Amino acid sequence: MALPFAKHVKQIFKTRIDFFGKENQFMSHINLDHISYKPLLPEVKAAMIDAINADFANPSSQHSEGEKAAAALAKARESVAALINAPSPKDVVFTSCGTESVNQAIKGVAMAKAQDGKHIVTSNIEHNAVIRSLKRLQSQGYKITSVSVDNSGRVNPKDVAAAIKDDTILVSIMHSNNETGTIQPISEIGDICREKKVLFHCDAVDSVGIVPIDVQALGVDLLSFASNPFYGPTGVGGLYIRRGTRIFPILDGGVQENSKRAGTENLLGIIGMGVAADLAKRDLPARMAHTLGLKEKLIRELPDYIDEYIINTHPVHSLPELLSVSVQYIEGESVMLMLDDEGIAVSTRSACATGSLRASHVLLSIGLSHADAQGTLVITFGVDNTEADVDRFLKALQTTVTTLRDISPLYQKKN
Amino acid sequence: MALPFAKHVKQIFKTRIDFFGKENQFMSHINLDHISYKPLLPEVKAAMIDAINADFANPSSQHSEGEKAAAALAKARESVAALINAPSPKDVVFTSCGTESVNQAIKGVAMAKAQDGKHIVTSNIEHNAVIRSLKRLQSQGYKITSVSVDNSGRVNPKDVAAAIKDDTILVSIMHSNNETGTIQPISEIGDICREKKVLFHCDAVDSVGIVPIDVQALGVDLLSFASNPFYGPTGVGGLYIRRGTRIFPILDGGVQENSKRAGTENLLGIIGMGVAADLAKRDLPARMAHTLGLKEKLIRELPDYIDEYIINTHPVHSLPELLSVSVQYIEGESVMLMLDDEGIAVSTRSACATGSLRASHVLLSIGLSHADAQGTLVITFGVDNTEADVDRFLKALQTTVTTLRDISPLYQKKN
Repeated sequence: MALPFAKHVKQIFKTRIDFFGKENQFMSHINLDHISYKPLLPEVKAAMIDAINADFANPSSQHSEGEKAAAALAKARESVAALINAPSPKDVVFTSCGTESVNQAIKGVAMAKAQDGKHIVTSNIEHNAVIRSLKRLQSQGYKITSVSVDNSGRVNPKDVAAAIKDDTILVSIMHSNNETGTIQPISEIGDICREKKVLFHCDAVDSVGIVPIDVQALGVDLLSFASNPFYGPTGVGGLYIRRGTRIFPILDGGVQENSKRAGTENLLGIIGMGVAADLAKRDLPARMAHTLGLKEKLIRELPDYIDEYIINTHPVHSLPELLSVSVQYIEGESVMLMLDDEGIAVSTRSACATGSLRASHVLLSIGLSHADAQGTLVITFGVDNTEADVDRFLKALQTTVTTLRDISPLYQKKN
Repeated sequence: MALPFAKHVKQIFKTRIDFFGKENQFMSHINLDHISYKPLLPEVKAAMIDAINADFANPSSQHSEGEKAAAALAKARESVAALINAPSPKDVVFTSCGTESVNQAIKGVAMAKAQDGKHIVTSNIEHNAVIRSLKRLQSQGYKITSVSVDNSGRVNPKDVAAAIKDDTILVSIMHSNNETGTIQPISEIGDICREKKVLFHCDAVDSVGIVPIDVQALGVDLLSFASNPFYGPTGVGGLYIRRGTRIFPILDGGVQENSKRAGTENLLGIIGMGVAADLAKRDLPARMAHTLGLKEKLIRELPDYIDEYIINTHPVHSLPELLSVSVQYIEGESVMLMLDDEGIAVSTRSACATGSLRASHVLLSIGLSHADAQGTLVITFGVDNTEADVDRFLKALQTTVTTLRDISPLYQKKN
């Protein structure tokens, strides 16, 4: 089990870690794990604090206090619709997170179109929200076809076309993968779905607000997204539903969200998301240039600090801010925890599920060995990172990797 | 249609309203619609603003920034569990709202127990979240039995016992009704369900944090609630699930919330809910005494201001803060909008759904005529109300009712 092993390593190197621990008191924390969390932008914080102090009423109330709240809700919806170029704000439904958006899209279409067929096409590198929603449907009699990706992590649109059958009601392919950063050929798949008259859902949770997304250009019927990936609050997401798309709500009750999603709105979070959407729309090119610059510096200088690693992120079709690298002969979990002691947050997707050693299905799908998949680190940059952060990370990584390889049985055996 | 009529009335009395409009600039707003929204308490605001500035990471991240977030999440869960006397914080799942909690409870049990049976027992005065969740299940082959309430709005536990059959998998009865405030005999129904070995869900969205709720004393397996009814933020709710209860998630994906609810948590909202729960636990008796005092003053003095009305709220078994009153010969919508012009927010449940005149199913269930149901006002007090608010409301109500009856065909005909 990766985690207990990593804790064991920490004990072995307690002295070293204590030293770093002391040093840490004088070092600022570096977030290189923006895929897991992004800090709220100052403007988003200010808007949310204003909203907290505004004592907004329930947007569904018919009195004038309710109308003020409804106006704030409408304003945020306009901002979010503009970010994804939705034809109308009415095409955007606010949800509680990207996962709810994905569940709503997939299960909502499955329920509404059950009479037309029960076959759904997806890929084998989707997020668990997609995979497990489809597994749930499978247990209810739906059939799922999962297309593979090539070694660069991309779906071949022709495979999607070949998988579509007469009773196919939905295709669900993600925009960018949260473990490799690789971006899929969504508009090509959109063309195929339109031609074959099959609904197309795109999980764009890790793309909206990070790279340009235009729902009309992509040719999607449904597109899931969330607020935190573009520096808005967690606990709020969105679902684009092309007008006229047949879909049932998964949350039944009141008539909120144009009867597409019942439940009193998270108005505070939605207001934060709206401001974050405005800023993302304005600053997207600058943010992309900034994070891509840091990623390119990291790729360029990495060979000066460590050897024997594999870069999993597509060189062209990938999120500018994300780099997935598998460091051979060691465990990513251990690297992550030791970097954490030095005040640097990264993530790894070779996480222990239910305590057993399980490599990421995404990394295995692109052809990595189990051992290499276990050595994977996901580094994601944000607007708050600097070149100095890359320098500090590289130095810390070098020390960590050297330390871990010194005790790695795999590394000893190989040399 | 009620709303256009009310707007028409507003036009007729434009001069009068303009006068009130001017006066309003010097009058503070009075919220007597706490069932629709409650202001955040100062302590809740402060905790949420601190959380906004704390830049919490993702509680699922394994690094130390993630651990800090996980600790904040755990603390809030303890506070919420304590408010409902759950045996362990692990028995509480955070959701995005009361509606999600209700959908999760009902649909989650229906999915998990489909093999055992497809019959569910409920009452005919439930909230739309319950009614429409059950309608959804009905379209999927489940059978629903809906027991009636008596003229005081209460379910007879014997009726529930009689409705339970061999294939009954769930009973769902609300704790208090959001339109009449009437409280149901939940622990008696709990005893019956335990005896008959049927799972029992209680929709307590308008009771938790308003009246004492002890999930163990009530004998419920599942209990839905939300944060705003006890002065916490909207967009966050909770579901109590008794340990060992067989239930499937309705949001599939990651392993958050002990694999019972996928999706990145609304940590900010959850932190606010935790603080609100602490305060509710501490202040419940004082709050109940305060709002009941205002309600009793209103009931006592109402005959001095208007005549010909019906009180729908149970004299004993009801929420201390809520009074439902049907003013005869006029429309509640019109009263609500005219009071709004005087800076007073109340609500009415005889709302127009989809533009057609539809009286509340709850009010018809307790035996009101369509006409009387249309004249219903729901007045709900909160910690921010004073006796002076009751005085101002009574005076404004008197003027409004007199004005509306002067043009009421029903009232003319009757006299």
